[in-house]
Amino acid sequence: MGLKEVIEEANRKAFNRLNEASSYWVDIDIAYRVIEGFKDYMLLHAGPPITWDRASGPLRGALIGATIYEGWAEKPGDAEKLLRRGEVLLEPTHKHGIVAPMAGVVSPSMPLMIFYDRVYGNRSYTNLNEGLGKVLRYGAYSRDVIDRLVWLREKVYPVLKAVIDDVKSDNREGLDFKNIIMQALHMGDECHNRNIASNTLFLREITPYLVRAGVDKSDVLEVYRFIAGNITFTLNMSMATAKLLTLAAHNIEYSTIVTVISRNGTEVGIWVSGLGDEWITAPAPTPKGVFFPGYSQEDANPDIGDSSITETAGFGGFAMASAPAIVNYIGGSVDYLVEANKMMYEITYGENKYFTIPYLGFRGTPTGIDIRLVLKKGLVPVINTGIAHREPGIGQVGAGIVELPLDLFKKALRRYAEKYGL
Amino acid sequence: MGLKEVIEEANRKAFNRLNEASSYWVDIDIAYRVIEGFKDYMLLHAGPPITWDRASGPLRGALIGATIYEGWAEKPGDAEKLLRRGEVLLEPTHKHGIVAPMAGVVSPSMPLMIFYDRVYGNRSYTNLNEGLGKVLRYGAYSRDVIDRLVWLREKVYPVLKAVIDDVKSDNREGLDFKNIIMQALHMGDECHNRNIASNTLFLREITPYLVRAGVDKSDVLEVYRFIAGNITFTLNMSMATAKLLTLAAHNIEYSTIVTVISRNGTEVGIWVSGLGDEWITAPAPTPKGVFFPGYSQEDANPDIGDSSITETAGFGGFAMASAPAIVNYIGGSVDYLVEANKMMYEITYGENKYFTIPYLGFRGTPTGIDIRLVLKKGLVPVINTGIAHREPGIGQVGAGIVELPLDLFKKALRRYAEKYGL
Repeated sequence: MGLKEVIEEANRKAFNRLNEASSYWVDIDIAYRVIEGFKDYMLLHAGPPITWDRASGPLRGALIGATIYEGWAEKPGDAEKLLRRGEVLLEPTHKHGIVAPMAGVVSPSMPLMIFYDRVYGNRSYTNLNEGLGKVLRYGAYSRDVIDRLVWLREKVYPVLKAVIDDVKSDNREGLDFKNIIMQALHMGDECHNRNIASNTLFLREITPYLVRAGVDKSDVLEVYRFIAGNITFTLNMSMATAKLLTLAAHNIEYSTIVTVISRNGTEVGIWVSGLGDEWITAPAPTPKGVFFPGYSQEDANPDIGDSSITETAGFGGFAMASAPAIVNYIGGSVDYLVEANKMMYEITYGENKYFTIPYLGFRGTPTGIDIRLVLKKGLVPVINTGIAHREPGIGQVGAGIVELPLDLFKKALRRYAEKYGL
Repeated sequence: MGLKEVIEEANRKAFNRLNEASSYWVDIDIAYRVIEGFKDYMLLHAGPPITWDRASGPLRGALIGATIYEGWAEKPGDAEKLLRRGEVLLEPTHKHGIVAPMAGVVSPSMPLMIFYDRVYGNRSYTNLNEGLGKVLRYGAYSRDVIDRLVWLREKVYPVLKAVIDDVKSDNREGLDFKNIIMQALHMGDECHNRNIASNTLFLREITPYLVRAGVDKSDVLEVYRFIAGNITFTLNMSMATAKLLTLAAHNIEYSTIVTVISRNGTEVGIWVSGLGDEWITAPAPTPKGVFFPGYSQEDANPDIGDSSITETAGFGGFAMASAPAIVNYIGGSVDYLVEANKMMYEITYGENKYFTIPYLGFRGTPTGIDIRLVLKKGLVPVINTGIAHREPGIGQVGAGIVELPLDLFKKALRRYAEKYGL
């Protein structure tokens, strides 16, 4: 078998696993209890590894906030000192199978939702989504931001724990979230920046358990209203699902399929299946989009967050034609996003068997980015994304679209040639 | 002012009212208590007036079932005798501001959901949707069909009553269902034959009230699971909303805008705003579509039901481009339904201000069918519809699309010319 055939077989395997992996929400627990070696004075962040001195504004803001949330410092200035002196160990979320949007800062006492792939036996994790606006993941760290994080742990976590325990007592191996994504793609979501269908479908699934789980009624109402009012709540769950799908396709010798795309606000990094957990990085591009009143392109931080795992798994920006109403949020025209979506077929291994786009005659979404095709066509993946302010402490200022740098894929192919001695 | 200007002004007024009318679900009660003069041995049915001898199979089946449900007869044979002898008075639903899908048979002790338009002060009513398959509205009348109707009254009605009472106690004038339709049109529904988004959005709205209304937990769960599992549940609510919108546009002197389209399985009838409550009728066409396994076009009954009030109000078949996934249910290709949808702009007064289609660049749905335009263009309204078996007692056999006969509009224009002495 020639090299070409070896690669083709490896990619076929990666693509099939990317399709066939499943994703069930199975539990929720506190991070230090489920992530091995997650100790005090350690924080996780989205994207490739980074140190404080190179971290962008929103990541710094989120690290400050998490340091206060954990009680390692009381004031932002003190938190910053700790962080600057390197007294808090920083590691990437992906190193631990976690995905978290934007700054993606996860600290030991935050709750994590746990997802399980029955087919390939993998686990992934995600944090609880705080809502829109002034939130930790966009770099805000004021008192109300910290209070909301505490409330997520003290109020939302126990209710969701009761729900998932009750789901499992019902002879079910958790809640099938891949199925929710499949449906939501027929209901105007692309499950990255538009999540209203997945949110309502998720609520429909959990409501019977919320009702009967024996939780205090006022707590049930409080948590229900929070999730119903936070249309990004299920983004994290879609990301954890995407992580399971891509994890199944990861670490296949000779495969040129991308299995992680993630950004830390300074650099964008990718994993390639055949290169294992090695980060290939390039400077993070700055997204273009629609800004909230009072903000403009100049305020935009370079791209940040693990949420581009959705595009890596074949939805989000790769399913935009399912979600025409998203132009209200990320800008652009419906025709543009349909065309941009179609272009992605040029750089992917195949069409998804489970994620389909009604408007394209139920064509499967473009799935499995092949670094060779990106370079051959000179066409880079498009990512839908939220936009953080470049200064710490401010938060979200808009949403838009970003194109990854071609250089990233050139570097990846060089590393690939090196590793396989080509 | 010339006649042309008089008509234009009348139609502008009708169109504006069709746009500006609101629709709030405000109550649920037993039919004989809310519909004036609704007495024993009286049944309502969809479409224009009809007698037993001219009624189609599914309407006869539903009349038999309702007669048994009311306890006026025990056996189908006895019920049929009563009906054949004319001992049960038949009247159209629209005469009473009620809309009900398919056979649309409403009997005195059935619960009706009550809708209110705050802007123009009108009320409309609809029955509770039984689900899919073997159900009264498709002409089935076996024991399980009757049992389900009893269960709707004994179990679902009290729970929904508790919910709506609680909604209103919450300082709200009911539940804004027009808003749910506006959202659902951005989530892949056209709100006639695809209702999954409106269903989940409705559940999201009522869940907090379900939780706190103080109803028995097992009843809450039973009703919740029924609605969540019945994706046509909110069709009736969309119809009641469409009835309020069209009612606001009705009875405007000189207006040529259609304010009712409805079928009784034998004839299709329309109301024209400037002609008041006068039915203009023609033989009902037979829909073409996708049939359930074991059934074919030959089994199809001519078109039946009040649900075409949705198209009259500017959604359903007039918003198909919002719902590409509907081709799974009604057949055809996505391109066809987008084109069919666009054609409707040719025969309508204007573009809806509140119902918009993301795929068409958020263009308002074609709204306000003008009988003059239908004749001028030789283009008839397209209706999405369920298909009933032509024999009584069987039920739904498919779903598809139907075009109204052009003759209907010719007759309407003749009557209009007569009335206004043109």
